[in-house]
Amino acid sequence: MFILHERLARGCVDLGVHGICRVLLKDQAHFPWILLVPEVPLEVTELHHLSADLYRQVCESIREFSAGMARWPGIEKVNVAAIGNQVPQLHIHIVGRHSGDIAWPGVVWSCAEKRAYEPAERDRHCERIRSWMAVS
Amino acid sequence: MFILHERLARGCVDLGVHGICRVLLKDQAHFPWILLVPEVPLEVTELHHLSADLYRQVCESIREFSAGMARWPGIEKVNVAAIGNQVPQLHIHIVGRHSGDIAWPGVVWSCAEKRAYEPAERDRHCERIRSWMAVS
Repeated sequence: MFILHERLARGCVDLGVHGICRVLLKDQAHFPWILLVPEVPLEVTELHHLSADLYRQVCESIREFSAGMARWPGIEKVNVAAIGNQVPQLHIHIVGRHSGDIAWPGVVWSCAEKRAYEPAERDRHCERIRSWMAVS
Repeated sequence: MFILHERLARGCVDLGVHGICRVLLKDQAHFPWILLVPEVPLEVTELHHLSADLYRQVCESIREFSAGMARWPGIEKVNVAAIGNQVPQLHIHIVGRHSGDIAWPGVVWSCAEKRAYEPAERDRHCERIRSWMAVS
């Protein structure tokens, strides 16, 4: 049974499943920021630990969410990363960036500024992401 | 004809080609750090811009270099990322990390500390990476 790591669960909205990945929106209003969390055993902490077939499925989800993020209003660049230095459960970041954002051109992982979404804004973003999941 | 971006060429050793990717070792002795640079037109700046077939090939190279990096002496975690906020040419970072490194648990992209390799150490690392490329 899959259990989402508490640090991922705490700061995110759970949007359901795409392929083998749980899809989360991070509650960080400075950047549109999606996490893909493959629903695999906890000992699978690196992308290359996935079987060839599961790796292919995760890469396909990365491709679709990256393309979706590139269509997000105002987004100029997509940052994709599997890091996991702090939360061991395998998860992939898909982050939309633009040259006016608070961390540009630096990376979001070292940005100390946090702001939770207003509920209406968060709901709008969740709706947008769910619309990608519905068609793929 | 493929031309490596000058900022990637400047700080790296070129180790040849794997699949469709140019393979570089970054001259940063604090972390073993490989760059995979798909040899594709410059307008392909995002992973999802690659055709399905080229994307699959790049993902296969990411998988193999990530597995190689995990076997690197002393490495505990592999960080994989496509960022590109500063250098537009599509490139993927494969970085070996451990809990005693200078940036842990932060990310390498915001680490200001730089140290070039001693020639013998750099040559040893290049040799190791070339050995992965020879068998795959």
